Amino acid sequence: MAGSSALAPPGFPAELHAGNRERLVAALRGHLSGSARPLRGLALLQGGEEQNRHCTDHLELFRQESYFAYLFGVREPGFYGAIDIASGQSILFAPRLPPDYVVWMGEIKPLSYFKDRYKVDVVFYVDEIAQVLQDKFSEHGKALLFLLYGKSSDSGNYSKPATFEGIEKFDTDLSTLHPIITECRVIKSDMEIALMQYANDVSSEAHIEVMRQVKPGMKEYQLESIFLHHAYMYGACRHCSYTCICATGENSSVLHYGHTAAPNDRTLNDGDMALMDMGAEYSFYGSDITCSYPINGKFNGNQTIVYNAVLKAHNAVISHMQPGVKWIDMHKLAEQTILESLEKENIIHGDIGAMMARRLGAVFMPHGLGHLLGIDTHDPGGYPEGLERPKEPGLSSLRTIRELKEGMVSSYLSD
Amino acid sequence: MAGSSALAPPGFPAELHAGNRERLVAALRGHLSGSARPLRGLALLQGGEEQNRHCTDHLELFRQESYFAYLFGVREPGFYGAIDIASGQSILFAPRLPPDYVVWMGEIKPLSYFKDRYKVDVVFYVDEIAQVLQDKFSEHGKALLFLLYGKSSDSGNYSKPATFEGIEKFDTDLSTLHPIITECRVIKSDMEIALMQYANDVSSEAHIEVMRQVKPGMKEYQLESIFLHHAYMYGACRHCSYTCICATGENSSVLHYGHTAAPNDRTLNDGDMALMDMGAEYSFYGSDITCSYPINGKFNGNQTIVYNAVLKAHNAVISHMQPGVKWIDMHKLAEQTILESLEKENIIHGDIGAMMARRLGAVFMPHGLGHLLGIDTHDPGGYPEGLERPKEPGLSSLRTIRELKEGMVSSYLSD
Repeated sequence: MAGSSALAPPGFPAELHAGNRERLVAALRGHLSGSARPLRGLALLQGGEEQNRHCTDHLELFRQESYFAYLFGVREPGFYGAIDIASGQSILFAPRLPPDYVVWMGEIKPLSYFKDRYKVDVVFYVDEIAQVLQDKFSEHGKALLFLLYGKSSDSGNYSKPATFEGIEKFDTDLSTLHPIITECRVIKSDMEIALMQYANDVSSEAHIEVMRQVKPGMKEYQLESIFLHHAYMYGACRHCSYTCICATGENSSVLHYGHTAAPNDRTLNDGDMALMDMGAEYSFYGSDITCSYPINGKFNGNQTIVYNAVLKAHNAVISHMQPGVKWIDMHKLAEQTILESLEKENIIHGDIGAMMARRLGAVFMPHGLGHLLGIDTHDPGGYPEGLERPKEPGLSSLRTIRELKEGMVSSYLSD
Repeated sequence: MAGSSALAPPGFPAELHAGNRERLVAALRGHLSGSARPLRGLALLQGGEEQNRHCTDHLELFRQESYFAYLFGVREPGFYGAIDIASGQSILFAPRLPPDYVVWMGEIKPLSYFKDRYKVDVVFYVDEIAQVLQDKFSEHGKALLFLLYGKSSDSGNYSKPATFEGIEKFDTDLSTLHPIITECRVIKSDMEIALMQYANDVSSEAHIEVMRQVKPGMKEYQLESIFLHHAYMYGACRHCSYTCICATGENSSVLHYGHTAAPNDRTLNDGDMALMDMGAEYSFYGSDITCSYPINGKFNGNQTIVYNAVLKAHNAVISHMQPGVKWIDMHKLAEQTILESLEKENIIHGDIGAMMARRLGAVFMPHGLGHLLGIDTHDPGGYPEGLERPKEPGLSSLRTIRELKEGMVSSYLSD
């Protein structure tokens, strides 16, 4: 089979997550010092729980909550994690599993296993949280817990602050942690970028395999299946960053096609364009790759015009983006480049400046130009406090309008 | 590629779900008449909702709630459905989608689309529920709504009764519907069995493809990937009935291996046995197939003994099961057959009757012998009212102890 040239999956990068914790501790210390507050307290996060499907005992395959994954890299459900701001000490709390777990779910691992795997300083059981925090961190009165509570600018939903039996014995702070950890996530470390590069390499190979096999008469979902298989079989990627969008023909104009109500079920026709928007995830870090091509391998005239217009916008953005540039300007540059190409090809007529002022570009690109990418496909931090989402057509869809900084990672020309 | 002999996926079987509704109406009428209650009221169910992953805008791929799927076969999220008991009239309520749905998610389908696809009598919008139920079904005072509320004997969780704005204007009954619809689901119609046969055929082919490709040095998850790909690519099965269990070596003794904390990540060694427990789902109906084999293709002595002991139990159950037989007796037959084989091979010594009385079989088969299978892997109805779960080791894991009836479908020798 073509494409069986497996990329070697990296081992679990515990140091990456230790680095993320160090970054958070430094940021929290800087913030507290800057506000003349004492360096006391712990950041406390609650990991995700396995979910049953409705009332049944069907367990959905668990994927860790993203902030928890960022700091601890823990793949198992039911954990808590804490970081002491003064000492930098990191603590995991593991669920105490019932004896029959070993029959149904597998080995009950000792706490030392989690200490070794996740490179934290110490591990206790979840039912010991209140006692541990009280014994070790309450010398000067009640310990202070910084809990994660804040709004996602993509979903409008709020993260759920950690809760445990006995939490009322502690002081809690709900406002400090979320913006600071979110800002940490915006700037990727070299280790994070290397992991994302791997997920991108796997996805690229899988896209190429799809291109090799695509032909008229196939179903869109078969392209999804080829991608998923290639990414898992040869890249060890069990999850994707998002549901595969395998859009052909007119479906290509639907930004988030492929979900249950539009399930990649069209038959491919000779002459169709395909828009393949798929990205694998490896060890929590994702990728997001969209490519368009004619399924019979030959662009017709109109397909060439549109493809080249998008390619030109893509290249314009790449050549202009650098630290200091504002992302909203990159969005406008893409829009303008597309309008210019369409004008040149006599598809639209008029003054480009006037079109831009009237926001005509939003007709051809209703989504924002890309988004921050990381542990989430739409990684958080697009609109930190003080930055307002634009209201104008097209611009209002931008998931960020930030000034670019070294270490930011974005997808572009996709949503 | 081997195995590319695609099975032709059946079209969407709207009649199957119409048949399920007819069965429910008949059962409800019988129950009401039997209790001298008037034939009035509607069964009202709320379908599932798409879920975001934690606070993000990551949408999990939606799979319909199983009772709702049983009656209506609706794949889209956000629906309600009602069936009038007196007339048998069926009504769907579709969510009213925002105008920008068309840009992001796809075509906004007219109500007539859902009427045609799901073969119901009439379709309204969800925001019209209270009005429609009041206008059409409240001639003789408040309309009576039979809501779904009851406990799953597998998870211990309760189904969530439908709720909507204005529900306080109606009479509601929380106790009647659940046991009756659950009992309907226990006995499969010919159309249901045909669909399950298709899911089983696809899964069988996918298992065979895994057998063809398995060899030492591979990772367990690669076997999962092969199965998933084969079932989707050639069988149109986007979902599986449960997370794939690709257990090799000592992992084979873990009943529900393969989840996030034990993620099919062992490397296969020459001489290993594989236990592959995987089943595809098609149009909501599932399959559950387990097979065991040596990955190098040759059983060694001990592997032969154990394999043959299980095969003999398997054959004994198949030759004895028939309507009228109690499932708990089939479980005991399997246990006894295994103990006899092990005794004959000098692995255990003593009197089989005494072993059975002391429940020694539970050591070798800690799970129950199979379970009802359908829209859920562990289909409901194993313990209808009046039937108590046994307390003895092994028997306490039985998901049903019922007397077999024509139309019941069970997996066997698996959990």
